[in-house]
Amino acid sequence: MSELITPSVADDELALLIDLYQLTMTQAYWKESLHETPTTFSLFFRKLPASRRFILACGQQHAAAMLSQLRFSDTAIKRLQDTQMFDAGFLDWLANWRFEGDIWTVPEGTPLFPNEPLLEVDAPIGQAQLLESLVMNLVQLETTLATKAARITWAAGDHPVVDFGMRRMHGIDAAVRGVRAYKTAGIHGTSNVLGGLRHGLALNGTMAHSYILAHDDERDAFRAFARHYANTTLLVDTYDTLTGVERVIDLLREAPSLTVGAVRLDSGDLGGLAKRARALLDDAGHPDIKIIASSGLDEHSIAELIDDEAPIDAFGVGTQMGVSADAPVIDLSYKLVEYAGQPRVKYSTGKVNLPSRKQVYRRQDAQGHYCGDVIALRDETGLDGEALLTPLVKGGELQTATLTKAENAPARVREALHHFPSHVTALEEGESRYTVDLSPALRDLASNV
Amino acid sequence: MSELITPSVADDELALLIDLYQLTMTQAYWKESLHETPTTFSLFFRKLPASRRFILACGQQHAAAMLSQLRFSDTAIKRLQDTQMFDAGFLDWLANWRFEGDIWTVPEGTPLFPNEPLLEVDAPIGQAQLLESLVMNLVQLETTLATKAARITWAAGDHPVVDFGMRRMHGIDAAVRGVRAYKTAGIHGTSNVLGGLRHGLALNGTMAHSYILAHDDERDAFRAFARHYANTTLLVDTYDTLTGVERVIDLLREAPSLTVGAVRLDSGDLGGLAKRARALLDDAGHPDIKIIASSGLDEHSIAELIDDEAPIDAFGVGTQMGVSADAPVIDLSYKLVEYAGQPRVKYSTGKVNLPSRKQVYRRQDAQGHYCGDVIALRDETGLDGEALLTPLVKGGELQTATLTKAENAPARVREALHHFPSHVTALEEGESRYTVDLSPALRDLASNV
Repeated sequence: MSELITPSVADDELALLIDLYQLTMTQAYWKESLHETPTTFSLFFRKLPASRRFILACGQQHAAAMLSQLRFSDTAIKRLQDTQMFDAGFLDWLANWRFEGDIWTVPEGTPLFPNEPLLEVDAPIGQAQLLESLVMNLVQLETTLATKAARITWAAGDHPVVDFGMRRMHGIDAAVRGVRAYKTAGIHGTSNVLGGLRHGLALNGTMAHSYILAHDDERDAFRAFARHYANTTLLVDTYDTLTGVERVIDLLREAPSLTVGAVRLDSGDLGGLAKRARALLDDAGHPDIKIIASSGLDEHSIAELIDDEAPIDAFGVGTQMGVSADAPVIDLSYKLVEYAGQPRVKYSTGKVNLPSRKQVYRRQDAQGHYCGDVIALRDETGLDGEALLTPLVKGGELQTATLTKAENAPARVREALHHFPSHVTALEEGESRYTVDLSPALRDLASNV
Repeated sequence: MSELITPSVADDELALLIDLYQLTMTQAYWKESLHETPTTFSLFFRKLPASRRFILACGQQHAAAMLSQLRFSDTAIKRLQDTQMFDAGFLDWLANWRFEGDIWTVPEGTPLFPNEPLLEVDAPIGQAQLLESLVMNLVQLETTLATKAARITWAAGDHPVVDFGMRRMHGIDAAVRGVRAYKTAGIHGTSNVLGGLRHGLALNGTMAHSYILAHDDERDAFRAFARHYANTTLLVDTYDTLTGVERVIDLLREAPSLTVGAVRLDSGDLGGLAKRARALLDDAGHPDIKIIASSGLDEHSIAELIDDEAPIDAFGVGTQMGVSADAPVIDLSYKLVEYAGQPRVKYSTGKVNLPSRKQVYRRQDAQGHYCGDVIALRDETGLDGEALLTPLVKGGELQTATLTKAENAPARVREALHHFPSHVTALEEGESRYTVDLSPALRDLASNV
């Protein structure tokens, strides 16, 4: 029974969230006495989804912090022992395993392009190999959702966007850590209580159709809810949207002591209904009552509503953002790029990786606009631009001073996006003309490894 | 710091994984003394994604079991208190809250069509309303993934399919509970250690390119790995796939005591390479060495490889299944359908819900083929076919005898799919001609509510 109700993963099981081959390969390295060999692994993506012009790297610092504290608990070791796939000596080694290497990351909320590392791990192969599955899973979620959310907040401009998507997200962890990604990308609030409390994002909520239906009359429902909650938001489309708005106006006329903060439109032609609702509210002397729209919104429909000058004050976004429906996955790879001090790279058909430890330099022109990136070797000198990767974990210890402060992330993201040319921030499908060059030294190395 | 490394959600926080409005609405019901009013809420979907002809309902029993034991812990109450949105009296009530109603569900792994309930909750509104967000989140994940996995196992026929997708799934909970959905849908094994151990699915693993690259020569890597693991799978495409196969053959010639179970092809023209690899292996006297293919596979590419008679013994599937990339969300709704014994339904533009408590009857013809469903009122009598919904939770107590046994689910799913006409199981986009009728009584009620 207890397995049935355990919602997710306890700390002492987290190290088992791993692909089996990481453990069998590591046992092989251990048997061959190769496990102490120094390596570098690089986390990057090879190409953008068709509907994306950049990705917003998110979760790489979060993941690095978790991994720096990862341990194989007694429970975990026992479960591995039960599989009869591992030697007692290897399991003893694993019981004492801890990460003692370095992890370089870009700041949370950094726009990135193909082949630019989000994160690099410098560690003995017996450590770096074991992190692969978990780091990819953790970064995948936050980066996928932050990238979608950044497009949505970009489309919404100065209009607040609120997350209503918890119910459609992929499970518990996605719902909770997703709010962290949303916050980084500049989403203003969430309906998700635990996600909001844990990650410090404002809690928002309106009402559901069921509340209206639980009363005999929409008017009774509005009156009751407004009495309980000053300045609340009333959902007006259960029967007919504009009739609903008129009933809100009637309610305030009958009971002037009540206050209503907003009405929410959740179906139909949102732009047209918003204009007519705005006119009704203004004519009744309620220019202060805001209009919130929801119902299948994404960056495209939000941009269209704004282009059309729909008088919508805030947007509630659910499903499309919650699973990043048009690009639910980023093609992340975590690849060995250096082994025993030597650059390594895999040459299979159609897949190319850049060898060795790397750094990314982002250059700005005199006006402060980003004008191109250079991927270079990490130790290369004399390159212009801002170096994006910094060491967040050193010798296994998290450098907390290097962590991106969550409260600063949204402003950093917004500012960064404003400094990119419009062909990077454009919402429609298509490739940007943003240049990502290789440094001469990396280019030489890549063609000679 | 501790928040940073907490991977997911502890039991005592689970009740906070809720949309804020569920709590504010419930507080409103409580203040209005409506919270004890009996209700029924129904969980269903309005329409299929374009790329789906059925969904495989999964997780509804799992969710019901979790919800029957849900509590607001002291920690949870304290956190709600800190928001200053709730009255002390309401929080006292919430601290003693427990689910005492009934939950009807269809068995795990039931193919369903639009408007057929996966689950119905009969409970006072102060209980049923609070479950909405969590039940939707939980069922969303497993149903979305099981539906995709069922298409993939259907395409693969008798060929085993193994899950390699943990790294691309949406976070920790998706990766762990995803394996439960995969198992239900007939996936044969997983690389995901924790998911496999927790949900009783065989662990599978091969090797990664990094292991090959960590050796000076592919031959050395093959030899070392085969020495450590009898009958293992060797990854042959790091440099050149067919050269890799020849090196496996050479290895077995040089060291006849070693055994190799399979080779894995992970790039290039998988069908063509499999034919040439098979010929090389057969000619060298190794008809027993199997060929496993992976690399961006989904149901369509698997069906094509099988149509093309590619000699592939097993398929490894990752990203496409891990996020159900072509349909990452099912449009689930959890709607109030009965209140105080009266049918209720919302009539907003473009959305229709069927009122009242329901049952679904699935009819078979003389040959055992499914020939249509009828959605009826739950208490209606005299209808033919198998009743799909049964009470899994009664008076708050889980009826463990009613739970679908996990080990029986895959065979049940396979058998059910074989009993549907081919226009339901076809993989290409398009609508099936499967009929889902309303019973006369439900039809009358729906048009008169």
